[in-house]
Amino acid sequence: MAKMSFENHIMKQFDEELEEIRTRLMEMGGKVEQQLKNAIRAVSEADSKLAEEVILEEQRVDDMEVDIDEACILIIARRQPAASDLRLVMMVTKAVNDLERIGDEAKKIANHAVILTEQSGSSNGYPEIRHIGNSVIRMLENALDAFARFDADAALRTIEEDEQIDLDYKTALRELVTYMMEDPRSISRAINLLWVIRSLERIGDHAKNLCEQIVFVVKGKDIRHQR
Amino acid sequence: MAKMSFENHIMKQFDEELEEIRTRLMEMGGKVEQQLKNAIRAVSEADSKLAEEVILEEQRVDDMEVDIDEACILIIARRQPAASDLRLVMMVTKAVNDLERIGDEAKKIANHAVILTEQSGSSNGYPEIRHIGNSVIRMLENALDAFARFDADAALRTIEEDEQIDLDYKTALRELVTYMMEDPRSISRAINLLWVIRSLERIGDHAKNLCEQIVFVVKGKDIRHQR
Repeated sequence: MAKMSFENHIMKQFDEELEEIRTRLMEMGGKVEQQLKNAIRAVSEADSKLAEEVILEEQRVDDMEVDIDEACILIIARRQPAASDLRLVMMVTKAVNDLERIGDEAKKIANHAVILTEQSGSSNGYPEIRHIGNSVIRMLENALDAFARFDADAALRTIEEDEQIDLDYKTALRELVTYMMEDPRSISRAINLLWVIRSLERIGDHAKNLCEQIVFVVKGKDIRHQR
Repeated sequence: MAKMSFENHIMKQFDEELEEIRTRLMEMGGKVEQQLKNAIRAVSEADSKLAEEVILEEQRVDDMEVDIDEACILIIARRQPAASDLRLVMMVTKAVNDLERIGDEAKKIANHAVILTEQSGSSNGYPEIRHIGNSVIRMLENALDAFARFDADAALRTIEEDEQIDLDYKTALRELVTYMMEDPRSISRAINLLWVIRSLERIGDHAKNLCEQIVFVVKGKDIRHQR
């Protein structure tokens, strides 16, 4: 075994710590993605049991946010990272917040799945929710993938996906309002669907934030709010 | 004038830098509070001109977020703060995000004010929006005040205000749905009001986040997601 200098040893520990928060962020991303998929399935398949599971599991996502955030502060305090290492740690403290909010929206969707199932017992599968839901799942997957590979170009391409989601969101809203006007008895149910679609649109925004943070880590450039 | 050691000099610069990001955060808070007040007034007084102003001014809030965030990263890189100083800087990078999102919700409210004014020309003053709006303004003021004084107890008291806002939000939603069912011609208008109320409820959540961050700086304790 090669002899390792004290400094190299410290550096190696530091690299391992950075690698660990990256891994934990990816784990949290995977968990949140699963929550989102389950929430959408709970709505479209009118599966209250699955919805309850999503609601219960949100707590784990919350805990992950607090734990990873604490690890980030410890790394900054102990290792005093600079340049891209510091950007990575700062990115992770922001990213866990966006992931937690995605988890929160997934829980809200699951709450509406429970109400929708109570209201009608079965569903027509809600094609518009499955459609937007699939786009949002794909966008989140692409964002997490871009983070895993530190791929700024992939992150920039993923940001563009949000436009189509916003368009689909607006179309779905208009359809819901028309539907409510034509059949006022459907209002209560339609309002629940409206919140689900709104949550999906918000998740797209959070996935976009994740991508902007990836560009920040890789390129050192803050591209938020560019007009 | 007393002679100042090199170390004291560095410490003084550091203190000044910390004080500066605090001041800038307070300025941003003041700006966001003004945006919120104007947005609510634009709805209740059917004032499209004021609404347009809020929409235009959002850009300044966005710029403040990016600038303060950059200043925080520079302080960490140059000064390597520890303990409560580090917590303060980390808190500020999170707080600017919540303030920016409050600004974003204020802009959304202003957008709905424009549509509502087009739809009807005048308004009944929307007492429910003024009521929840006033509670949310007060909560944000209290949060900023707790931050200015680093007062964890005031922050904890302010967090409790969010419960009443959530209750008022739910009541207002139920009333809107009843209203829509009774008069389906009002649906389009009611949906706009529904988004305004939702934005107000979200702003309450962000003010709560600010308070949790204040407790974190002062007490070193992460109280998010406590059940």
